[in-house]
Amino acid sequence: MKITCQQTDLENAVDIVSKAVPVRTSMAILECILIDASSGEIKLTANDMEKEIDTILNGSISERGIIALDAKKFSEIVRKLPKGEVTIRTESSLATYITCEEAEYKVVGKSGEDFSYIRVSQKTDPVVISQLTFRNIIKQTIFSVADTESNKLMTGELIEIKENHLKVIALDGHRVSIRNVELKNSFNNVKVIVPKKTLNEVIKIIDGGIDDDLNIYVTDNHVIFEFGQTTVVSRIIEGEFFKIEQMLSTDYETKVKINKKKFFDCIDGATPLITEGDKKPIIVNAVDNSMSLSLSSYIGTMNRTIDIVKEGKDLMIGFNPKFVLDALKVIDDEEITLYMLNAKSPCFIKDDAESYIYIVLPVNFNNPGAN
Amino acid sequence: MKITCQQTDLENAVDIVSKAVPVRTSMAILECILIDASSGEIKLTANDMEKEIDTILNGSISERGIIALDAKKFSEIVRKLPKGEVTIRTESSLATYITCEEAEYKVVGKSGEDFSYIRVSQKTDPVVISQLTFRNIIKQTIFSVADTESNKLMTGELIEIKENHLKVIALDGHRVSIRNVELKNSFNNVKVIVPKKTLNEVIKIIDGGIDDDLNIYVTDNHVIFEFGQTTVVSRIIEGEFFKIEQMLSTDYETKVKINKKKFFDCIDGATPLITEGDKKPIIVNAVDNSMSLSLSSYIGTMNRTIDIVKEGKDLMIGFNPKFVLDALKVIDDEEITLYMLNAKSPCFIKDDAESYIYIVLPVNFNNPGAN
Repeated sequence: MKITCQQTDLENAVDIVSKAVPVRTSMAILECILIDASSGEIKLTANDMEKEIDTILNGSISERGIIALDAKKFSEIVRKLPKGEVTIRTESSLATYITCEEAEYKVVGKSGEDFSYIRVSQKTDPVVISQLTFRNIIKQTIFSVADTESNKLMTGELIEIKENHLKVIALDGHRVSIRNVELKNSFNNVKVIVPKKTLNEVIKIIDGGIDDDLNIYVTDNHVIFEFGQTTVVSRIIEGEFFKIEQMLSTDYETKVKINKKKFFDCIDGATPLITEGDKKPIIVNAVDNSMSLSLSSYIGTMNRTIDIVKEGKDLMIGFNPKFVLDALKVIDDEEITLYMLNAKSPCFIKDDAESYIYIVLPVNFNNPGAN
Repeated sequence: MKITCQQTDLENAVDIVSKAVPVRTSMAILECILIDASSGEIKLTANDMEKEIDTILNGSISERGIIALDAKKFSEIVRKLPKGEVTIRTESSLATYITCEEAEYKVVGKSGEDFSYIRVSQKTDPVVISQLTFRNIIKQTIFSVADTESNKLMTGELIEIKENHLKVIALDGHRVSIRNVELKNSFNNVKVIVPKKTLNEVIKIIDGGIDDDLNIYVTDNHVIFEFGQTTVVSRIIEGEFFKIEQMLSTDYETKVKINKKKFFDCIDGATPLITEGDKKPIIVNAVDNSMSLSLSSYIGTMNRTIDIVKEGKDLMIGFNPKFVLDALKVIDDEEITLYMLNAKSPCFIKDDAESYIYIVLPVNFNNPGAN
């Protein structure tokens, strides 16, 4: 094999596929990035058996071939190359020469024929979404996916398309994050649970804007994301996602309009008083047009007050501060609205159009307003 | 005690003294920042028994007093306060109220009377140096101080003043870093070894420019740095520093002028081939007006070439790449000069005025140019 390309293109392509190189694996070949120039294009691939990423590298092929190179070392070498034209040449011994201007590296690769791919069944019509929109809605919900593996269905995020409507849902048993988007076109219905790890990598490497398309294909066992010159194939999480419709009741007794930044700063201000072993709730007390927030732990106490516009009953309710902060961080609105029924029912933070719905379960508190 | 100050001033003062809060200590009082408003000024102090930092906080005292507050929690709370006027008020129970606009925190402090200070003997006339100059020369040498504690004298940096001449020296047995500076005025001779840990903190908190003075006092057991409203007291390392004069021979057989950035990039380019368990040297071969650099490890080989201007003999010599890179990182000159005698003698990187001298010992290599 002998190929030539620009260092910047190569570095970019290596960065993209490196996201699928496994941290630990018993299959040594999977520690490699595959460079496949056996057909008319140069394709880089990596695969951790859960997901596979490939990307087309712009460049020219003067001798067709295929080689697998240790991902970590290859990527470090590529980053240290001068910014110029790079040539990668392999010999039949698998010795590989990487040259750029006055620099020459020699490493020994593995046979590209031994590389292992994820086998995907025939794909059908894609759903087409703006890359920017997709990246945003995943970033705005993925923090709610559970960290533990105790419930498989909670380790992924639901992506649901009905005609021209896209909904994503992430939940972990303490909170639910939902984003709704209207698409430009209508598509066949899709409902798929995608692992958090895959989505985390996809949003890192997807770099297009609002007018750049992302194609999503769903097969029996896999979901495929295609954007630019890159394809990500991932297993899907099998099973029926949680039915959350009955949670989405519109009943409330207390409706509070509040400045998002001030609300955030007050809750965030309580975090110095929380320790790993003493996770005290923040107690929110909405009375007339004022909300007091207090937290009391063995370290000390905090009391803060914000002006609000309240409709309905006064209410005192406790929350895990982190869950509220996580939601507030990803809401762009300056002013937000909370809907609450009572101290034991979930609090809804949502806009009128329901483009976002963040649901946080309350926590019990024994000693409200303790000082 | 009751004091009032601006949140930004308080945050800044807490940041400064926090650098002397010990990570681990058996004396609980040292986990605190002391706020001393018992005289006419507000002084914050922290002390890890090796060094003590105090700084004056601008503000007003409406009730004199003294309190010690848990450093970590106090500093977190201060950071989360609104940007406004802060009041800190203590009760005789040691309960401490920190209020700022609508936010109020209550924590329980410790008696300020129990705080422990470093006892310093009477100080004499200071040496006066520009804060910027001092910060620069320490940054440009401190990386050569040894990380291990096996030789106490190597865990600090020598600061030597002779009349109007300031010299700093750091060494670890493999390399020596020296900076020389002419001062505006002459001072009494000073020779003191300051622990690396102290210097690291001093250069973090020193923020003055070329015209802002740093006063250095040396007493029997301590060195004192005074700048702005801050004082750092540190123990000194006792003993006679290494005599390096005999190393500073001016003999050389090979003198090489080289572009610093290209030299750096070539050596840095070899780092992907080095692993923790296989620290191979970079082999530098200066022949006529060309220098080739090569490194060969079980991962692979690298060969690179740079144009040089050479006087004297051709020479092949091996180095630990890290030691050369560390020196090149802190040299501002575009072009540098190497002075070498033979493959077993140290390599000198220095300018004509000897404002900097970096000495790197060579390493043996068995199989030069292996491919």
